[in-house]
Amino acid sequence: MAGQEARKVMRKAGEATTVVSLGHGLTLGGGDFAVIAGPCALENVEQVDKASAAVVAGGAHALRGGAFKPRTSPYSFQGLGEVGLKLLAEQGRKHRLPVVSEVMDVAQLPLMVDYVDVLQIGARNMHNFSLLRAVAKANRPVVLKRGFGATLEEWLLAAEYLLDGGNDQVVLCERGIRSFDTTLRNTLDLAGMAWVREHSKLPVIVDPSHSTGHQSLVIPMALAAAAAGADGLLVEVHPTPETALCDGPQALTPALFGQLMGTLPAILAATGRRFAGSTPLAAVGGTR
Amino acid sequence: MAGQEARKVMRKAGEATTVVSLGHGLTLGGGDFAVIAGPCALENVEQVDKASAAVVAGGAHALRGGAFKPRTSPYSFQGLGEVGLKLLAEQGRKHRLPVVSEVMDVAQLPLMVDYVDVLQIGARNMHNFSLLRAVAKANRPVVLKRGFGATLEEWLLAAEYLLDGGNDQVVLCERGIRSFDTTLRNTLDLAGMAWVREHSKLPVIVDPSHSTGHQSLVIPMALAAAAAGADGLLVEVHPTPETALCDGPQALTPALFGQLMGTLPAILAATGRRFAGSTPLAAVGGTR
Amino acid sequence: MAGQEARKVMRKAGEATTVVSLGHGLTLGGGDFAVIAGPCALENVEQVDKASAAVVAGGAHALRGGAFKPRTSPYSFQGLGEVGLKLLAEQGRKHRLPVVSEVMDVAQLPLMVDYVDVLQIGARNMHNFSLLRAVAKANRPVVLKRGFGATLEEWLLAAEYLLDGGNDQVVLCERGIRSFDTTLRNTLDLAGMAWVREHSKLPVIVDPSHSTGHQSLVIPMALAAAAAGADGLLVEVHPTPETALCDGPQALTPALFGQLMGTLPAILAATGRRFAGSTPLAAVGGTR
Amino acid sequence: MAGQEARKVMRKAGEATTVVSLGHGLTLGGGDFAVIAGPCALENVEQVDKASAAVVAGGAHALRGGAFKPRTSPYSFQGLGEVGLKLLAEQGRKHRLPVVSEVMDVAQLPLMVDYVDVLQIGARNMHNFSLLRAVAKANRPVVLKRGFGATLEEWLLAAEYLLDGGNDQVVLCERGIRSFDTTLRNTLDLAGMAWVREHSKLPVIVDPSHSTGHQSLVIPMALAAAAAGADGLLVEVHPTPETALCDGPQALTPALFGQLMGTLPAILAATGRRFAGSTPLAAVGGTR
Repeated sequence: MAGQEARKVMRKAGEATTVVSLGHGLTLGGGDFAVIAGPCALENVEQVDKASAAVVAGGAHALRGGAFKPRTSPYSFQGLGEVGLKLLAEQGRKHRLPVVSEVMDVAQLPLMVDYVDVLQIGARNMHNFSLLRAVAKANRPVVLKRGFGATLEEWLLAAEYLLDGGNDQVVLCERGIRSFDTTLRNTLDLAGMAWVREHSKLPVIVDPSHSTGHQSLVIPMALAAAAAGADGLLVEVHPTPETALCDGPQALTPALFGQLMGTLPAILAATGRRFAGSTPLAAVGGTR
Repeated sequence: MAGQEARKVMRKAGEATTVVSLGHGLTLGGGDFAVIAGPCALENVEQVDKASAAVVAGGAHALRGGAFKPRTSPYSFQGLGEVGLKLLAEQGRKHRLPVVSEVMDVAQLPLMVDYVDVLQIGARNMHNFSLLRAVAKANRPVVLKRGFGATLEEWLLAAEYLLDGGNDQVVLCERGIRSFDTTLRNTLDLAGMAWVREHSKLPVIVDPSHSTGHQSLVIPMALAAAAAGADGLLVEVHPTPETALCDGPQALTPALFGQLMGTLPAILAATGRRFAGSTPLAAVGGTR
Repeated sequence: MAGQEARKVMRKAGEATTVVSLGHGLTLGGGDFAVIAGPCALENVEQVDKASAAVVAGGAHALRGGAFKPRTSPYSFQGLGEVGLKLLAEQGRKHRLPVVSEVMDVAQLPLMVDYVDVLQIGARNMHNFSLLRAVAKANRPVVLKRGFGATLEEWLLAAEYLLDGGNDQVVLCERGIRSFDTTLRNTLDLAGMAWVREHSKLPVIVDPSHSTGHQSLVIPMALAAAAAGADGLLVEVHPTPETALCDGPQALTPALFGQLMGTLPAILAATGRRFAGSTPLAAVGGTR
Repeated sequence: MAGQEARKVMRKAGEATTVVSLGHGLTLGGGDFAVIAGPCALENVEQVDKASAAVVAGGAHALRGGAFKPRTSPYSFQGLGEVGLKLLAEQGRKHRLPVVSEVMDVAQLPLMVDYVDVLQIGARNMHNFSLLRAVAKANRPVVLKRGFGATLEEWLLAAEYLLDGGNDQVVLCERGIRSFDTTLRNTLDLAGMAWVREHSKLPVIVDPSHSTGHQSLVIPMALAAAAAGADGLLVEVHPTPETALCDGPQALTPALFGQLMGTLPAILAATGRRFAGSTPLAAVGGTR
């Protein structure tokens, strides 16, 4: 990895983590921990409303939901498109929380920036260099997911396309890689996440949903990510996972999400951290 | 892999391989074997001229060369763009051979179809579904490379996007996958190629250059691909690999390319096949 | 994974985790968390003495150290053999803690059982079925490491050899697998660990040292393992990692080990757990 | 890979491939190509007799068959043991061909050397260093399979244990590695095989049966291995694959084995080689 030191994405000696502003006052990278939650795909008015209400009740710091879905098969549900973006944006306004959604294509960008606070680049597009260059000019913070076939080095170089293109408001998101063991959907690389946090100056969050594919593993991996020093989580929550149009088996129910959010503060406190937007008193009063 | 049988990409019982017309009378899938050769990146007039002359002298059936290069680092050479496409198209006209080049972006498509006979979708874009949908409407045959992190199933589903979008002129290209062993650039999955040839109706070619990353392994893997039943090769040839701007260590010299082309016919004959256009009648009929 | 339910290693509905007695009153699987620590290889009297003193001072619950080392190259240090076992056993007696060491060979078993409380089967021997059958008859609890090329299914079936052979005192140890990313030594599969804890009735511990290969990642991964529900840790500690004969770059110093042991209780408390032997009553009962 | 040059297993500049004598006049490494064939497991008198007759009729150069089977599950068929070895040895005497069988354990060695000409070390034992050291002293040529989780470097270092232990009669056998794609049983690494042939002085053969797990892929991969320069094959043949006690789906029928043996000479001739034991005239007369 020659030349690493010269890259914008790498942390120079003593350099602080980049503070990324996601909107509505929420930041990532300043030490506090943020949870971005919502359904995999935006499906209809009722589902978006219920999911948002549930994650807000649980204490989520930002809302997520997919309007354009990159699906392996052309015959799978491909997302609501602009209709979904509108629903998501309404929830953001209503709850005063930033909203995050995935952009799949340069052509979608003008539409996306009308509706979302944070642009997500998905794992399958991490190596879509045309998209990276365009998003670098889009004047929005970015969540850049790691490709499931990408090395840590390649992930950082994809971020370098964004930084070199003029956008330093980048959050990295580890979401699992391919390995020879296919019992789970992917292999969550938490040590890789920790290595990236150490060597890059960008904040790093973890997606415990796509990485495992199993609802029962989402909470253990979310807690593990927090203990390992991640800056936040991207978690899938669905009001009724059993009827989800996309990735239901890995979605938390509202009740399980509440349980996760109730446990995280103590894990964070163990390593001297707290939820984003927590007051010092609340942190002291509530972590244990 | 439920529902496989209903897919357009799968071979029904007794169904013949799709014959894909690449231009200038060259076809893939009809039983004959075709070699597409040229430099990784188009660099300048002299290099394109020398490389083309060399591969034509060796007996190549089509020319390749990259004008838009998907590079892991934003600081690597990114290609000549339209200037390169013009140089490549000139060589195609001069030698009456189809030319193949990679399209990275929907926005490049109008330009690409002005210059190239065959559109290549690279490994890093195999999961770029927006690009797949646009290329399906572009009225050009397509070489679809396998993503280095993609399963055989996902590769076939990416092709399904093209077929479902209305383009059945698709050639699959195996170019190596990621494995835990990083001695070589990738792990060439020839058995996966053979499995795909058996289960899909699309012709399949092999790239022995990117898959190995070592010049000394290109000929052995090219011969192995032919022996294993591949429909053709995509090979990198550079007049002076030691000065190449991109992937020099894996490029064949003109002399080595000549050696490969001299050995292939006997390998093909062993399994009852031959080079495209290699019978007198066929030659008269126009493949060259 | 047909027939899984019939296996001895799988957890039947409602079945409790097997409680494994490691000696000196220490158990794994009953809910408390145990830390097994020490150097990778036993090197000499002074190193063994200092390492043991350091991990005991930090609060370790058992001692580890390799006397027979499976080394990739025949020219690497192969371990002290019986001399090392004697040194380790002395430390166990002195500190009243169980000692763990790796057995590489059926022929070593009679010697091993004279000196160690717990037999470790290393990753490279997980598929050594002759060794598994012999260890099943050795009347000692076993720590069975996952092979770095083994699926979760294969790991559980290796344990099945032990249980079917008559020994149910088995602790599984996740220590990282091979993936295409070689930035770190291995890819720690914490989600796989959590899946195994859910589906098998055996306790599972985590080795954050071999799995990462980097000292700076050991504490984050140790905390993550605790948060994810592991039953314990197997950690390498060396008085002077820079002079270690084996795997120095991944060893914690005594100071870092103390820091880890100081942070773990709060992580464990967050999920309703505690260190083994940490209540007064338990202490009276004898684990310390 | 520092220090590579000093290793016994590496090819020094200009050094010839080691010629390994397998018995009954058969050698590997001298340029000719040898096919070792037989059933995965020795099952009973009739099966061993029929399988041997079939592979001899097809022109095999050595017989293989497993008496001790390393099985992932303790509940799978574990082999006939000494009874199987006797059956195999009888076939060797009858047909005057060397016989190859796997040794799983140091304790089996005295028995094995009474019956077999060539000792096979299986993929699961490639890292069983105690076994490697013992086999180095056993005065028999060795077929060393690559571990399915082993790098090329580790495979060569396992062979170094044999050479350093005094046995230079070692044949390497590529049999597929683990990758993220599990459509096939393993991922056959033919380019890795070619790299090893270039950098090591040991002959290298290929197992197209275990590497693919599919009967329909065995012939394509066997031909590919020959075209890529392998020194031979290790192929599974069963008189009735549908009733095999072990790995039936990957076994060739006698008819398919005959078809493979009929095609190989032309592939070999294309690269200037021939079957072991072919007379120059036969080679000239028969390759095309």
